[in-house]
Amino acid sequence: MQFTTYLRDGAPRLAVAAGTDLIDLNAAQPHVPPDLRAALKAGIDLHAAARAALDSRAPRIPMASVRLAPLVPEPGKIVCLGLNYYDHAKEGGRDKPDYPWFFFRGASSLMAHGEPGVVPRVSTRFDYEAEMAVVIGRTVPRHTKEADALPYVFGYSCFNDMSVRDYQKRTPQWTIGKNFDATGGFGPVLVTADELPPGATGLRIQGRLNGRVMQDADTTDMIFGVAETIALLADVMTLEPGDVLVMGTPAGVGQARTPPVWMKAGDTYEVEIERVGVLSNPIVDEAA
Amino acid sequence: MQFTTYLRDGAPRLAVAAGTDLIDLNAAQPHVPPDLRAALKAGIDLHAAARAALDSRAPRIPMASVRLAPLVPEPGKIVCLGLNYYDHAKEGGRDKPDYPWFFFRGASSLMAHGEPGVVPRVSTRFDYEAEMAVVIGRTVPRHTKEADALPYVFGYSCFNDMSVRDYQKRTPQWTIGKNFDATGGFGPVLVTADELPPGATGLRIQGRLNGRVMQDADTTDMIFGVAETIALLADVMTLEPGDVLVMGTPAGVGQARTPPVWMKAGDTYEVEIERVGVLSNPIVDEAA
Repeated sequence: MQFTTYLRDGAPRLAVAAGTDLIDLNAAQPHVPPDLRAALKAGIDLHAAARAALDSRAPRIPMASVRLAPLVPEPGKIVCLGLNYYDHAKEGGRDKPDYPWFFFRGASSLMAHGEPGVVPRVSTRFDYEAEMAVVIGRTVPRHTKEADALPYVFGYSCFNDMSVRDYQKRTPQWTIGKNFDATGGFGPVLVTADELPPGATGLRIQGRLNGRVMQDADTTDMIFGVAETIALLADVMTLEPGDVLVMGTPAGVGQARTPPVWMKAGDTYEVEIERVGVLSNPIVDEAA
Repeated sequence: MQFTTYLRDGAPRLAVAAGTDLIDLNAAQPHVPPDLRAALKAGIDLHAAARAALDSRAPRIPMASVRLAPLVPEPGKIVCLGLNYYDHAKEGGRDKPDYPWFFFRGASSLMAHGEPGVVPRVSTRFDYEAEMAVVIGRTVPRHTKEADALPYVFGYSCFNDMSVRDYQKRTPQWTIGKNFDATGGFGPVLVTADELPPGATGLRIQGRLNGRVMQDADTTDMIFGVAETIALLADVMTLEPGDVLVMGTPAGVGQARTPPVWMKAGDTYEVEIERVGVLSNPIVDEAA
């Protein structure tokens, strides 16, 4: 099953994908809250609701005719992993970490598929990072073990963890360089966990700048997989429905190239994950 | 004016303080949403609503009879500053930073005044950090200048940025050590900005472990003041109503002492800020 979030009258609405169309899930199944996080929190059986919507005569809306919103418009937490592919750690001159380099994004940094990533006025060092996003479906009990972690995953999506490199490195805390407005591309769809291999391993993940392949790896190359990451976080915090994990990027980022490659207005970056989708964001300059 | 957030039937409710009592603001003034963030987002004139509630016969509830919630139960963003007092940077062996060490907390790390801070099962290196919290009242336009920043502050409160030091230092990213469940004490009340000096400078800030003074400073000693911090953040992100800034801690933390002082079950830590209030949290062990 595939879900997405689109804008209707400026407000995000949860939808189920039906080929190249979508069905507004709340309109088709009024017991489903219009927001994915709220629906997960309420414990709604979204598979059943989506099946019922797909079997109904609910209106089909061509996906190409709508603007999308970030897949989860306002997650409670967005937990990101740095250096989670060995080849990317290596290109940055770092060893394989023995614990994830966790940092958080805020919801104000997100943008939808098709919406622009914004080169900020204060920097030109604007980089891409193709990543896989994980959406938590149910509250993860503290100290859940790795072997028990995957059933808490609702599904997977694509993420572009665009990074303002000079701000990221102004201090040892990367957070600020990862939280510029409109730098976290998220979507276009979520593919539910039951349709993918456990932990979404074995999937090709690719990043393309204006069509040229810049990043090309397999999700199996992640140092900390999805289940282990959830277990490590469960030692620390309560992961809640609608929380998002952003699983780190493989090698090939712009800053590690000679000369460095920075994204600029007019560019487009695509993140493709096999069987999950293609996230595409044009790049624009922040308005003067 | 002083506001607080208390629990009624398990749900957080915004209240105005009336001496040692409180008045449920939504009950007294039904146009006010029951949540502080939602009320600020809706642009409600909370001063007027609070005055009307105080002038009315709305029921007074003794504050001592209720359980509080974190002052903003679910902020959109909680932006924290590390090393923002020179003496604290120095005790950690670091220079005065020329840019704040920003990191984020998630709402799942917060707890109210009177609620316990929890020593996690996985660590005993549990430290205190007395801090001032700033609650943003209105959306801060991007690139707002320092001179124009303070009118966006709704008010000030106390915060205990309890830190799990070994997790904080497992990698260079501090985030994970700052996001254990029930480690961010926040309250008990918010004092509106109009009742304090501009930027809440010149206020004594003290931290006490079981009554013993461990931290004692003046908010004027902050390296980056409130207005400058807002301006620096406005270069990066949109600060929204109900967002929280946590302004860093002065010297005297447990890890910098010889021998180190770690909080343990049975302790109590108080954060007192002159004219703002006293935040008190007992310490307990995470349940086995």
